[in-house]
Amino acid sequence: MAAGIRVDPALVERAVLELAMEGAHGETGVWRTVYSPEWVAATDRYTAWCEEAGLRVHRDAVGNVWGRLDGTDGGKAIVSGSHLDSQRPGGRYDGALGAIAALVAIRTLKERFGPPRRPLEAVALCEEEGSRFPSANFWGSRAITGAIAPDDPETTHGYDGESIAEAMRAVGLEPERIPEAERDDLDAFVELHIEQGPILEQSRLPVGIVNAITGIRHYVVELRGTANHAGAFPMDLRRDPMAGAAEIISGVVATAHRMGRPAVTTVGRVVVEPNGPAIVPEAVTFTVDARHPDPAARDALYAKHEALMREVAARRDLEISWHHTFDQVPLTCDPELVRLLEEAAANQGVPSLTMASGAVHDTQRMAARCRVAMLFVRSKDGRSHTPAEFSSLDDCVAGIEVLAAALHALAY
Amino acid sequence: MAAGIRVDPALVERAVLELAMEGAHGETGVWRTVYSPEWVAATDRYTAWCEEAGLRVHRDAVGNVWGRLDGTDGGKAIVSGSHLDSQRPGGRYDGALGAIAALVAIRTLKERFGPPRRPLEAVALCEEEGSRFPSANFWGSRAITGAIAPDDPETTHGYDGESIAEAMRAVGLEPERIPEAERDDLDAFVELHIEQGPILEQSRLPVGIVNAITGIRHYVVELRGTANHAGAFPMDLRRDPMAGAAEIISGVVATAHRMGRPAVTTVGRVVVEPNGPAIVPEAVTFTVDARHPDPAARDALYAKHEALMREVAARRDLEISWHHTFDQVPLTCDPELVRLLEEAAANQGVPSLTMASGAVHDTQRMAARCRVAMLFVRSKDGRSHTPAEFSSLDDCVAGIEVLAAALHALAY
Repeated sequence: MAAGIRVDPALVERAVLELAMEGAHGETGVWRTVYSPEWVAATDRYTAWCEEAGLRVHRDAVGNVWGRLDGTDGGKAIVSGSHLDSQRPGGRYDGALGAIAALVAIRTLKERFGPPRRPLEAVALCEEEGSRFPSANFWGSRAITGAIAPDDPETTHGYDGESIAEAMRAVGLEPERIPEAERDDLDAFVELHIEQGPILEQSRLPVGIVNAITGIRHYVVELRGTANHAGAFPMDLRRDPMAGAAEIISGVVATAHRMGRPAVTTVGRVVVEPNGPAIVPEAVTFTVDARHPDPAARDALYAKHEALMREVAARRDLEISWHHTFDQVPLTCDPELVRLLEEAAANQGVPSLTMASGAVHDTQRMAARCRVAMLFVRSKDGRSHTPAEFSSLDDCVAGIEVLAAALHALAY
Repeated sequence: MAAGIRVDPALVERAVLELAMEGAHGETGVWRTVYSPEWVAATDRYTAWCEEAGLRVHRDAVGNVWGRLDGTDGGKAIVSGSHLDSQRPGGRYDGALGAIAALVAIRTLKERFGPPRRPLEAVALCEEEGSRFPSANFWGSRAITGAIAPDDPETTHGYDGESIAEAMRAVGLEPERIPEAERDDLDAFVELHIEQGPILEQSRLPVGIVNAITGIRHYVVELRGTANHAGAFPMDLRRDPMAGAAEIISGVVATAHRMGRPAVTTVGRVVVEPNGPAIVPEAVTFTVDARHPDPAARDALYAKHEALMREVAARRDLEISWHHTFDQVPLTCDPELVRLLEEAAANQGVPSLTMASGAVHDTQRMAARCRVAMLFVRSKDGRSHTPAEFSSLDDCVAGIEVLAAALHALAY
């Protein structure tokens, strides 16, 4: 394995800053939703950089931009990349850094080692966040893996009401041709992404190597009791869904905390009916987002949560119902790729930690078609999905050098 | 004390049903906000009934309707009544029953015993609920007790934006003349009202005698932490205001429950920022409505709540702040009037319970000018502020007979 692969920090810095100009929001924010003029401009810029680096560019049917460096031996492609769309607003690094990293790594390898044996591709994916079309997460990676149903484009609607098919046509894409974006010639996908959490920062390490991506379930839980006068109804006769919800929320948070890292459970959303200060509520609806990357631990976490919800509702004589709005099984990354990334980090002299991802990523989708792994770059204060997200240039460069070393080992 | 005072059930039933036609909402509901056409029609009807009963009618400067039966000896007036305005929607009984009760009781006494020694007055008060002008609760009783400031009419705004002064002018009242509504010639005020809670029903008793009205404090509590990614941020590093809020809500509810009747604490309103299922919230704001009719117990309840809020916030490293939007001291009813009502119930053969009111009432305001007490009539399922509120005709009649007996003892 090659050691001492260095990338040009100035190249990385310029790319991050220039890409952030497309959809710039305030001083450090980015507001770049899929198929918007800002997103189109970002893909144009990415295309130009690929061409500048001597890569063959292909924009596929959903708008993913591919930059390819052919391999002398042919075969299935080694791919890296991430998404160009952002939260509303997000920051400069979430997604964008991974697309830039792939391009910079391949350009660096080409300049230093010439053409690879195996084809290398950088990809800028579209609509990972679902920030314009809330049910269209992973639109780009779903197209590549054949996971967009024929009627999805017309039935997937944005916050403004328009279908994603209309938005595609507005930027010159033909929804009917989405199946053409599918790929069956991929060997490996390695995505570099900011961590979005504080674990690397706490560990004082610049880079993480992701060996698993968490399983997630989103519960929507509704507790119903009886609305009553806050003054005239004694405590012992109430059927108060707020008291039940508070007990469940305390309990699920404590369960995940006690189970220990990487278990996480979050209640981020609560809606109360009628939500008046002097009325015992009729109903409290809340979400429970519970995650664990280990399949058995995940099942145990969910079982504990559900047992608590049932027990509290029964004891407090409340009606309870729940459904899942999202249920994704954990992904174990390819052990060979993980080992390769660990070795690359060691060879490059980059201290790293092998860890699970608590966030979802395009990588999970890509796993349907090829072996996958990920690299994390340290996030300041663990923040993301905000203009305040930040990763230092040193950390970005360290991550890209590990990526380049791994791509070198795979393709040369 | 006279025993065997009987009122005509048909008169009570007809009055309840006819008054409910003004602002009828669905089958059993009433939507009658102050100074609306429905409210004007209800006051017209009440005026006509007073005249029919041979009472001298006076509409005061805020729109309270008074029906007076002069006393042969003169002196300060013995008054009963309640409010004609409703929730949006409310039911047929909350307020309306007390206005009807006063009129029916005085009419019954007049027909059976002739003119009293002391003046007797029935009053239909305006805007107790604050359901059109949220900060105008007790508008009618505040006018009577001189508790409306000169600029209140212009600065008190309704949900639709108009000032209460405009609404008064639209029905022919002059806000400048509000001071003329003040009374300094009242001796006693006895308000009959539905219980709005389940205590009488649980005790299988038709009537309650109110010896105290609860003290209430409304806290608005804001807990601030740090918004973070629900997946990537470990439990042990979070500053999660939702977890803190849940612990506080569970705790305050448990404290009031453990303190026992009549302590009550309610969290009826919760607002979460940003309220997304996959984001650890930045802030959770919630109300705490805490009530106790005993001044010392009330202070103890509040102290326990505040100690818990401080402790949870400090332990979880959350910023906490709170303010009061409402803080009303408890009212102890006049012991002489309470004893008189208990004796009247016993003489009438009406089983009763002496109890505190957990709800606020015009009576609290009237206490500034005269001695006060209240009568409660059993509420089906303890419900109020809903079209489903119901009190049986038998219970209403029993309550009015106790009221009439007490007014007889006071005025004859």
